[in-house]
Amino acid sequence: MAKDSTKPIDEKGITVQKEEDFPEWYTQVVVKSQLADYAPIKGCMVLRPNGYAIWEKIMHTFDAATKKQGVRNAYFPMFIPESFFHKEAEHAQGFEPEVAWIERKGDSGERYAIRPTSETIITDFFRQWVRSWRDLPLKINQWCSVCRWETQDCKLFIRSREFLWQEGHCLYATEEECHKDTLIFLEEYRKVMEELLAFPVILGRKTEKEKFAGALTTYTIEGFMPDGKALQMGTSHDLGQGFAKAFGVQYLGTDSESHTPWQNSWGISWRSIGAMVMTHSDNKGLVLPPKIAQNQVVIVPISYEQKPEVLVKAKELQCQLYDQGSLLDDREGYTPGWKYNDWELKGIPIRIEIGPKDLEKSQVVLVRRDTGEKKAIPLHEVKQAVQETLETMQKELYQKAKESLQKQTLSVKNWAEFENALKEKKMAFTTFCGDLHCEEEIKEKTSATSRCMPLNNENAPYGSMCFHCGKQAPWNTYFAKNY
Amino acid sequence: MAKDSTKPIDEKGITVQKEEDFPEWYTQVVVKSQLADYAPIKGCMVLRPNGYAIWEKIMHTFDAATKKQGVRNAYFPMFIPESFFHKEAEHAQGFEPEVAWIERKGDSGERYAIRPTSETIITDFFRQWVRSWRDLPLKINQWCSVCRWETQDCKLFIRSREFLWQEGHCLYATEEECHKDTLIFLEEYRKVMEELLAFPVILGRKTEKEKFAGALTTYTIEGFMPDGKALQMGTSHDLGQGFAKAFGVQYLGTDSESHTPWQNSWGISWRSIGAMVMTHSDNKGLVLPPKIAQNQVVIVPISYEQKPEVLVKAKELQCQLYDQGSLLDDREGYTPGWKYNDWELKGIPIRIEIGPKDLEKSQVVLVRRDTGEKKAIPLHEVKQAVQETLETMQKELYQKAKESLQKQTLSVKNWAEFENALKEKKMAFTTFCGDLHCEEEIKEKTSATSRCMPLNNENAPYGSMCFHCGKQAPWNTYFAKNY
Repeated sequence: MAKDSTKPIDEKGITVQKEEDFPEWYTQVVVKSQLADYAPIKGCMVLRPNGYAIWEKIMHTFDAATKKQGVRNAYFPMFIPESFFHKEAEHAQGFEPEVAWIERKGDSGERYAIRPTSETIITDFFRQWVRSWRDLPLKINQWCSVCRWETQDCKLFIRSREFLWQEGHCLYATEEECHKDTLIFLEEYRKVMEELLAFPVILGRKTEKEKFAGALTTYTIEGFMPDGKALQMGTSHDLGQGFAKAFGVQYLGTDSESHTPWQNSWGISWRSIGAMVMTHSDNKGLVLPPKIAQNQVVIVPISYEQKPEVLVKAKELQCQLYDQGSLLDDREGYTPGWKYNDWELKGIPIRIEIGPKDLEKSQVVLVRRDTGEKKAIPLHEVKQAVQETLETMQKELYQKAKESLQKQTLSVKNWAEFENALKEKKMAFTTFCGDLHCEEEIKEKTSATSRCMPLNNENAPYGSMCFHCGKQAPWNTYFAKNY
Repeated sequence: MAKDSTKPIDEKGITVQKEEDFPEWYTQVVVKSQLADYAPIKGCMVLRPNGYAIWEKIMHTFDAATKKQGVRNAYFPMFIPESFFHKEAEHAQGFEPEVAWIERKGDSGERYAIRPTSETIITDFFRQWVRSWRDLPLKINQWCSVCRWETQDCKLFIRSREFLWQEGHCLYATEEECHKDTLIFLEEYRKVMEELLAFPVILGRKTEKEKFAGALTTYTIEGFMPDGKALQMGTSHDLGQGFAKAFGVQYLGTDSESHTPWQNSWGISWRSIGAMVMTHSDNKGLVLPPKIAQNQVVIVPISYEQKPEVLVKAKELQCQLYDQGSLLDDREGYTPGWKYNDWELKGIPIRIEIGPKDLEKSQVVLVRRDTGEKKAIPLHEVKQAVQETLETMQKELYQKAKESLQKQTLSVKNWAEFENALKEKKMAFTTFCGDLHCEEEIKEKTSATSRCMPLNNENAPYGSMCFHCGKQAPWNTYFAKNY
């Protein structure tokens, strides 16, 4: 290959091993595959087009699911008056340390916060908009960014001072409807994570200590990363009547009496992209589950400068694979090997190689990004082989991650086993008293926190004792260090 | 109808006439049709689900158009370091009075602004991402909100301190490509306004005085409202090399030399929704052009409590008209007349009435929202009639607005005619010297500003004189008072 001084100089591959230096490996994968980049504002990041394409798929999938549930999108101001925070005391306490205020103030001198979440301002509009049972349920969602001024260092996708998310806010006439929907939205989150991102999650309920500031009950989907840390991937809060009472929301029932409605809220963020990267990617770079990949196939023609028919056939294949968003890499001045590395770094699920010899045999070589498996495929079977391979890959990536999650979870009965599980960078499944002070002590000693009490399996066997304090333990609970 | 104390009390119709009190009429239409509402933060508003559904259609339409042009979406931080503003002097001067700063600061004490627009921060990333001609053109867009702390009162959709928009930012190797795309995106804006919103616009170039802070040339699409004020609906800026030089963006050309690239940026906001409302709506409420309406048809069954077959047939029709997002209004306890008013207020393009007598005759009554025209349609022809009516309505709404725009424009030759045009609440089309000071004087005397020099007709006839200063006038120019 001729020397080409215009070639990008910094696009070399990943220079550290996932097994050796996980944090550095992760940063390199995210930055070099051009998903995201650090911003000049400390703690903030840019979501680049490769990353935004993933976020768009998450948005479209989840948005369609919520619309089927009768949710409608809206947009509320990014500014929240200070007085709103103080109406719900727990909420204010939970969020105020991380709030960013603006220098501009209201006419009466009132401060404005940049929204860390929008329960307060949305509940205030619920108060204005809801008159009677006819207006309920009222299901609203917004796609926006929020700001939480974290003091810890930024970790791309996982922790940043501004992040993209959606926040759903619904109001109901009855407690039952409210609670039912809280779990329906949790289930929709599970589907996005497991079916789209091929990322297995644990569904559960948060302990008193870990629940959302102002919620009655917080449900969560929890992930576990290869480096032994848990990650909260999304939450759905049953807010009860707390915010509605604080903001004076009332509706006239069919009985012509005033009632206080019930409320939930639920959110997922771009964090899920980080979790997906950590789980599936390898030392060559990004691995994208096919369903989340904007471009599922890249075709690399070989020696087409010598044999133009190769390029003709490659273009034909690209048209055939239009639905898979297939790319054709006919960039001049790069070797096929350089191109393979480049697309492996960027995580395209399938690579199709076609050269003069393949053409003679009427075949292509199909390469899977995740396993590296190579297969010769007759030309007339390419489309079917691609479809089958994409389906298999999606299933196997999930299966592999699921097995890994199971291997990373240890059942423990006492403190010694618990400490050992953490030392081995595992998640501990144990019986727990649920007491706030007990949990605070555990965190102080180990920095581990409860992740959740698993849905459908939250009750500890009769007579269980807390692994830490030894008192009666009503709950099965996951514990782990976390991001 | 039985007394029903649970009925909304404030959903009565519009109480003022469009012709008599335009500002109050406009506010009532927006608020009562539930498009938007005032926020508790002065100068901000909430985009309610009815309004957001319109914004979603604008987003989907324009997003698809930009993707065909090779544009990719991304997301940049909402915060911009103060030092970035000062790199491009004109830009800083233009925006700083309206910037909102946050109280949190960088490690070195640097202030952070909430983005009023993102040329600076995006150009800084272009500097980091672009190495060679291979990386160009680079076409990026983001959908986000921006903040400009206006001192004037908020006008729903038209002027608010935070608003939703998209901002496109592209970088090119050559001046020609850059300029060509600047006009391509302007043309895409025209299509959204005219073909989707049925809203006619004037395409043109801004004068020196009115162009974007930091641009070489600003192109605009201008609308004119029924109350005699112009509205800038979207702009596309040829930024030349100003920002690229200020931020040190360079690329290595095919000649292995360093070059400075060329740049444009372009944006439309939710303002276009306000313009559409002002233009098409009437004293009954909102009028939505069919293509922008999420629900194009509402079916109102009559006396179905007495004759259940009516409701059966109405439901059948709703299924037939699924593609039109048809609604069935079977709310109990409301008269058909109340329902008609309600849907007229909310702007649904077609109402279908069906009662026992219609059923006997195997027909429905189809009512157009814009003209009020009623037609009996045989049951088996409903689908076709609906499709045809929607198409006709879309065309006629545009045609009517186009004629109105023409009637509201006056060609003027001198100052007396100019003042008279403004007095008659018209837009003046005239010959203009283009001089900054001359234009400032005009604004001071009349508060009117130049809107644009029309594309493809910007040169004044040879020998023309400026209507104001009498000097040589190279330009045909529109002037008007504006929002």
